[in-house]
Amino acid sequence: MSSLNQLSATAIAKGIAAKTFTAEAVVRDCLDRIAAREPVVHAFATVDPDYALMQARALDRMPSRKGLLHGVPIGVKDIIDTEHLPTEMGSPIYKGHRSFGDAACVALARMAGAVILGKTVTAEFAGMFPGPTANPHSPAHTPGGSSSGSAAAVADFMTPVAYGTQTGGSVLRPASYCGCVGYKPTFNLINRQGIKFAAETLDTIGLLTRTVDDAELVTAALINKPPAYLRHDSPPRFGLCRTPLWDTAEDATKQAVEDAAKRLAGAGASVKEIVLPEEFSKLYYTARETINNYERSKSMAADWQHHPDKISKVLGDRVKQGFAMKHADYIAALELADRCRARIADAYDGIDAIISPCVKGEPPEGLGFTGEPAFQQFWTVLNGPAMSLPTHTGPQGLPVGIQLVAPRYRDDQLFAGARWVMERLA
Amino acid sequence: MSSLNQLSATAIAKGIAAKTFTAEAVVRDCLDRIAAREPVVHAFATVDPDYALMQARALDRMPSRKGLLHGVPIGVKDIIDTEHLPTEMGSPIYKGHRSFGDAACVALARMAGAVILGKTVTAEFAGMFPGPTANPHSPAHTPGGSSSGSAAAVADFMTPVAYGTQTGGSVLRPASYCGCVGYKPTFNLINRQGIKFAAETLDTIGLLTRTVDDAELVTAALINKPPAYLRHDSPPRFGLCRTPLWDTAEDATKQAVEDAAKRLAGAGASVKEIVLPEEFSKLYYTARETINNYERSKSMAADWQHHPDKISKVLGDRVKQGFAMKHADYIAALELADRCRARIADAYDGIDAIISPCVKGEPPEGLGFTGEPAFQQFWTVLNGPAMSLPTHTGPQGLPVGIQLVAPRYRDDQLFAGARWVMERLA
Repeated sequence: MSSLNQLSATAIAKGIAAKTFTAEAVVRDCLDRIAAREPVVHAFATVDPDYALMQARALDRMPSRKGLLHGVPIGVKDIIDTEHLPTEMGSPIYKGHRSFGDAACVALARMAGAVILGKTVTAEFAGMFPGPTANPHSPAHTPGGSSSGSAAAVADFMTPVAYGTQTGGSVLRPASYCGCVGYKPTFNLINRQGIKFAAETLDTIGLLTRTVDDAELVTAALINKPPAYLRHDSPPRFGLCRTPLWDTAEDATKQAVEDAAKRLAGAGASVKEIVLPEEFSKLYYTARETINNYERSKSMAADWQHHPDKISKVLGDRVKQGFAMKHADYIAALELADRCRARIADAYDGIDAIISPCVKGEPPEGLGFTGEPAFQQFWTVLNGPAMSLPTHTGPQGLPVGIQLVAPRYRDDQLFAGARWVMERLA
Repeated sequence: MSSLNQLSATAIAKGIAAKTFTAEAVVRDCLDRIAAREPVVHAFATVDPDYALMQARALDRMPSRKGLLHGVPIGVKDIIDTEHLPTEMGSPIYKGHRSFGDAACVALARMAGAVILGKTVTAEFAGMFPGPTANPHSPAHTPGGSSSGSAAAVADFMTPVAYGTQTGGSVLRPASYCGCVGYKPTFNLINRQGIKFAAETLDTIGLLTRTVDDAELVTAALINKPPAYLRHDSPPRFGLCRTPLWDTAEDATKQAVEDAAKRLAGAGASVKEIVLPEEFSKLYYTARETINNYERSKSMAADWQHHPDKISKVLGDRVKQGFAMKHADYIAALELADRCRARIADAYDGIDAIISPCVKGEPPEGLGFTGEPAFQQFWTVLNGPAMSLPTHTGPQGLPVGIQLVAPRYRDDQLFAGARWVMERLA
């Protein structure tokens, strides 16, 4: 490790606490990395170096640590409100827009001592129309979306941690494509005051990090819970759920999942194949798309009314579909989702965490399409915590993550499983 | 009826469609009523007469109706974002604050032809610290809260309809105290983009109206569902649930509920006493307070960090309690709520709607305390739709409503039951 920007959030917090280095030195190394790499990666919508350094110096002057994240830089997806920095939503409609103040997740991070490093590029309103971000491993490939800048910035060592949001697959897919950890907590774990909704019954604030511990550390600061850092004393009991989408996966993903199952079993874990009831096959396209488009048309109502010409065709089409949708179809989709959320408990009987495909395959070439979200959507609708773990690469040498999921509210259990996986596969 | 401000939203929409009168004439009569009564009632935080008239005249010039609410004036609780008009949250922190644009519920009402008449007084951040609003029936008594201005304005014929929000009892309690209809839909029925959260897993946008049909009409415009106006062909099957709080109710409420049950049974309805399992007795104080305070501290994090001196003691104490609360206690409260939400389905077996106490009694004297919320909170936590119906008065001649509730997503069924009740009791 030659510079501080390569450290994890956990190592940064420890190093500052031990006075091995200062928060200012960490921020300077992050800013240097940003200056060097942004012409290629375009991960940030806004960086204000003076503002970041001012926060770091203020923390360095404090007689004691402000909290768990004292001096840890954090990137914030540009649909999340921030004081001082603009919140532009990846949309010309919000060009230069300044919110009244910080979103809850930003204010809470600040109260725990984090440095708000900058705003990261989001696909337009956290949807499918991409921003300028490139995949740091291969700039001709998409970084995924919609938390494109957050994943690219973390994977490229510009910041140890960044906020994302996931309505379908917007945290886990870019994490897989960029080769970092993506964590979508249990629905509603991290308070959503101050974010622009895509679809409010699905939108979940999540984290892009480079380690499992970092995801837990930052979450702990936001939910008032000391990090548990649980570990399995004996090998965990994994489920393997290929999902009804298995045949749509590329070989890169199939091989990653099967290799993971084989090597984890070889390391002593039990791996039990799980086949979900037929009803679950309607979750990802039918139910999630219905819920998403219906709610999307409502949350975009003001923007659509005044600025239809400034909304991309891909998003505008969804808004139009949502406005045309019957309320009864929306309620039927919510009720299906509710039933599956109740039934998924059965699948976890005797299981600590489920391994599942995370993405279709390696990141597609080109920056116009942020990739297929179905594998992530499937678990998003079920409301439990999900992680993308950077365990594999595909035939082009690009990252392919595997997905690990756990029951609702059992985020600690997910972290424990993820640690066990990463120590054996990464 | 001497003036148009006394008409229901339904009658206003019909009259404008039939060209019996104009939207401008309706708005003028509402503005006249506001001018006459505001010195006593103080229902509005902001009214801009020119802006209201401009909207009405634009609607009058249109060759065809814009939508279901063409020309219907609507008041908007001051924690809900609006373009042009400030959104001040009942807090000095937000004095003069202008949001980027309309909240979803405001934009959708506008798309359906509503006139945004003004912003109504909210208790501070939709909590318990009151604004200046007085009860229109007796200015020495509280109008209830936190949707104080919305209930007072509707009850006092300043506007036919106003938005409220309910996290505990903030729609139904002021409706009961002011003697109008209060409707809290199924959780999440009306899109919440653009409101300031109190506690996001409970906050529900609702309506204050003077008729059941008006509540359904406005909701229909917001959720893309033609109003069904369902009616019971044969007498409905009511449950009577006194709740574990029964003994805390004043005679005025006990008599209202028992009188309602007796007269509805006399009119042919079946009325079956429902006693809920013991677990439900932890819902209102323990579980709801835990969820509320925990989430409140997060949604207020930015305000608390920068302006603790501008936050009332009653709210500041809740924020402090929320920050001190263990995450495990919060999750336990959410899990209790989830279990009760699942179990309440049993209570509705063979029942169309449940009658329950709405408030402790008549509105308390004085404007410092907006009243006891426990009876409303009990049903809010259960997520189903709930209405306060202005059926009774107490010994002081002040309004005492009864509460009618129905299963989740069965809002149409609630409206049908409410119509049947109102036609027999009001």
